[in-house]
Amino acid sequence: MAHIDLGFDERQHPGIRGLTRFRPETAGPLNALAETLLRAPHPTLGPGERELIAAYVSGLNDCGFCRASHSATAAAQLPAGRSLVEQVRADLDAAPVGEKLRALLRIAAAVQRGGREVTAELVDAARAAGTTDLELHDTVLIAAAFCMYNRYVDGLAAFTPEDPRAYEMGARHLVEHGYAAG
Amino acid sequence: MAHIDLGFDERQHPGIRGLTRFRPETAGPLNALAETLLRAPHPTLGPGERELIAAYVSGLNDCGFCRASHSATAAAQLPAGRSLVEQVRADLDAAPVGEKLRALLRIAAAVQRGGREVTAELVDAARAAGTTDLELHDTVLIAAAFCMYNRYVDGLAAFTPEDPRAYEMGARHLVEHGYAAG
Repeated sequence: MAHIDLGFDERQHPGIRGLTRFRPETAGPLNALAETLLRAPHPTLGPGERELIAAYVSGLNDCGFCRASHSATAAAQLPAGRSLVEQVRADLDAAPVGEKLRALLRIAAAVQRGGREVTAELVDAARAAGTTDLELHDTVLIAAAFCMYNRYVDGLAAFTPEDPRAYEMGARHLVEHGYAAG
Repeated sequence: MAHIDLGFDERQHPGIRGLTRFRPETAGPLNALAETLLRAPHPTLGPGERELIAAYVSGLNDCGFCRASHSATAAAQLPAGRSLVEQVRADLDAAPVGEKLRALLRIAAAVQRGGREVTAELVDAARAAGTTDLELHDTVLIAAAFCMYNRYVDGLAAFTPEDPRAYEMGARHLVEHGYAAG
């Protein structure tokens, strides 16, 4: 059960959705940030790749709701689907992703440990793989943002469904309507 | 030097200000979130108390820019000023703050370590000190948000001035104009 009384049945509004319903004033910027980072048009990173970064960081933070939610949303938007998401989460070094995306995911993992963990060596390796300034910026901010979302959800012990179908339904809704629709 | 080329002299726009100038699309939600969390009218937590939570978490994350910036902004808005901010950061158990604020700062420190670190015992202790659901929610989200801002600034190695006057000037501007003014 959540640490706070949301004023409604949390099972009807699991995870962050219950929290944003409880506090609409902060829901606006939180949803707008997710929409811009993960779904807005981007010159090089598709929504599936950005959702994969979010799913990967959420797994490193051991946030069950965000990991399941963004894994499903990444899988729905990547050609290789769920198996790619699981391979990245299981063993990034061996996963069948391009070298640029692998370098960006390594930077995301560094951000998860702490901002100062992003070393010049990691950045140089990403540059050697063809990474742009915008990709570096967005990867760091996506990873940092999920260090927030993950702590928000688990810090208030928001309800986390166990049925995978709940996340697949959520992913379909997100792919179609986005984060700003709440 | 920052990990990315911002396209302008980073010393003119230090810390997060350079990053939001580089990427105005994400600057909007990031500034709106800070404005809502730290400065919007609140039934019980003043802006100084909320800035103190931000400064405390930024210190725990060892983010020099955010720690100095939010310590100065907290000090400018708290009757006890800078000495109180320093006492909280040096020894929360002994600092001269009320028991409710002390309990909220303990929850913020737990969030900094990870969302699952917020235990029922910490929440019960905060309730016993008179904490409301809204205060719990906002404390968890402020702490979580600074786990994002801190990683954003340090993950991109944003320029961090050493002169304390830079932060005092910044604090005066923030108190007067807010975060949305950029």
